[in-house]
Amino acid sequence: MATRWGLCGVGKIGHDFSVAMKTLPPGDHQIAVIASRSLERAKEFAKRHGIPKAYGSYVELANDIDIDIVYLGVLHTEHWRVGLLFLAGKNLLCEKPFDMNSGQVKELIAAAKKNNVYLMEVMLKEDMVLGFLLRLSHAIWSRCFPVHAEVRRLLAEKAVGELKLVKAYFGSLQLHIPRSVEKELGGGALLDIGVYCLQFVLMVFNGERPESIQATGVLLDSGVDESVIVVMKFSRNRMAFCAFSIAARLPNDAVISGTEGSIKVVGPMHCPTTLMVNDKETKYPLPERCLPPNFIDSTGLGYEAEEVRRCLLKGLKESPRMPLADSVLLTEIMDEIRKQVGVTFSQDSQ
Amino acid sequence: MATRWGLCGVGKIGHDFSVAMKTLPPGDHQIAVIASRSLERAKEFAKRHGIPKAYGSYVELANDIDIDIVYLGVLHTEHWRVGLLFLAGKNLLCEKPFDMNSGQVKELIAAAKKNNVYLMEVMLKEDMVLGFLLRLSHAIWSRCFPVHAEVRRLLAEKAVGELKLVKAYFGSLQLHIPRSVEKELGGGALLDIGVYCLQFVLMVFNGERPESIQATGVLLDSGVDESVIVVMKFSRNRMAFCAFSIAARLPNDAVISGTEGSIKVVGPMHCPTTLMVNDKETKYPLPERCLPPNFIDSTGLGYEAEEVRRCLLKGLKESPRMPLADSVLLTEIMDEIRKQVGVTFSQDSQ
Repeated sequence: MATRWGLCGVGKIGHDFSVAMKTLPPGDHQIAVIASRSLERAKEFAKRHGIPKAYGSYVELANDIDIDIVYLGVLHTEHWRVGLLFLAGKNLLCEKPFDMNSGQVKELIAAAKKNNVYLMEVMLKEDMVLGFLLRLSHAIWSRCFPVHAEVRRLLAEKAVGELKLVKAYFGSLQLHIPRSVEKELGGGALLDIGVYCLQFVLMVFNGERPESIQATGVLLDSGVDESVIVVMKFSRNRMAFCAFSIAARLPNDAVISGTEGSIKVVGPMHCPTTLMVNDKETKYPLPERCLPPNFIDSTGLGYEAEEVRRCLLKGLKESPRMPLADSVLLTEIMDEIRKQVGVTFSQDSQ
Repeated sequence: MATRWGLCGVGKIGHDFSVAMKTLPPGDHQIAVIASRSLERAKEFAKRHGIPKAYGSYVELANDIDIDIVYLGVLHTEHWRVGLLFLAGKNLLCEKPFDMNSGQVKELIAAAKKNNVYLMEVMLKEDMVLGFLLRLSHAIWSRCFPVHAEVRRLLAEKAVGELKLVKAYFGSLQLHIPRSVEKELGGGALLDIGVYCLQFVLMVFNGERPESIQATGVLLDSGVDESVIVVMKFSRNRMAFCAFSIAARLPNDAVISGTEGSIKVVGPMHCPTTLMVNDKETKYPLPERCLPPNFIDSTGLGYEAEEVRRCLLKGLKESPRMPLADSVLLTEIMDEIRKQVGVTFSQDSQ
């Protein structure tokens, strides 16, 4: 039986998610409902993507007993509020950044546990957004890509010897995008794209908490972070560093250096299709898509949908690819980085 | 008239320096003397390289009135002592790392000024050394490479817009090399190869002092640094970071990210022959050599010899490519990094 999805949010990422879904077997996945704060927009979206039902409010979606899981594609400043609404009774696939801070993340997880539903953070990529202020940049879809699965396999078998250094970059020119630069929209490089780098490091270190975190950053006049460099020290003399910026282009790759070689996730590292192991390149092509997407490689969202279905069919309460403990650690690290570089949101004092 | 060189040290770098000299017009450069602590080795070296005179002590070289400049190629723990000997009356081209700390560097510079001689720090590259414990890894020869000249030109004309981020890497497996790992030989990644990354950053920032320095490192049991990551913040929201390690291979490249593009010095960035500006690649091939070298791209040492001759002919007291102020700042930064990661040498308390 197909997994029945309810989409919350009609923004660009909702479009790309719907496009990606069409690359999967229709017997496995079905988008049953689209919900927006605007019924008109929901209907328009439903028509474009062939979705049978459209709601003009989130509450209707939360009350629909005929769906298996909600995909939450609204601005991340709303994740906590809207997430709690769905978690009262629904499974939820929540975009990145999971929330504004680790306190909110822990509340969502507590609600999920309480309601015995499936919750998994999902991360998607975006370079631009126009008009409608949905939160369209995500990250942890990365972990469902075949390249990342191969990285985990290589690390497990110590293919490049003992792990020494990990680096991850993400930089793109986003100073013209309101939700990237405005504080009230949860802007800044860290929440928008830095999260991709950090989640990669945590994946490599298998969810281990770093022994130390040192962050250096520069801020925009709006008070959010423009560029940040983070250095983390892990047990057994291992280190990682991340650089991310919304004001500079960076290679957007990630490299794991071991004592016997290196693994390079060729950019875009958050949705990669090329892996280099000691200079040997392997390609992992994406499925063909039916409509033009908004975001690079976004048919890879299908990998994530498949992971969700796998977890649902197995009765898992969270995805082993992105355990909730990793999400908590990730946001705790992000809280610490914001503290060091001097970025605070109104949500921090709530 | 040819510049008459006296070589101090018969190690691998002395060999490579002599080989590089043969790529230059003989009417411009002549190695007149080789000096070693062992007359036998000096004679052997002289015979192999066709050098007319060999001394079995450094004092003889210091007293030879027939040479224009001494190239100092001994272990860096000896730079201060031996450097002062030559600076009493000779011009001196001093390998990197200049000295063990900034105090020693300032003393050498004071001696140079006092004696009105030419002094320039020079940096050479090496990946391995066997047997004889000369300090063979250097760095600031880098600044005399055509690639670096082109980088300076591009920066001056803002070819990639406003400077935002600079990164430089250097990592190679050197844990089997005594002078890389032993404290009494001045070991550690910082002095050996980190200096290359830092000098690059300082070149890009035109000798500006960073506003902040944050270093995270892991140490070997011997007490020297195995791997270090350094983040520096400069004026006008600009940052730089360096990663260097003697226990992991790294790409050994350097990238300057600006608001309108990037400049990549393709590895080996300390003696580069390839530059990429916004993905457009340009090659700067090295001269052909007559004998196999010990170190990669070491015929590029000729660029440095030419710069020295140029300065001597112009009557300059230091090279504008690597001003002494940069050398002082460089070693002060290195002192600060060692302080933060916890590496001290006996020379620090002298």
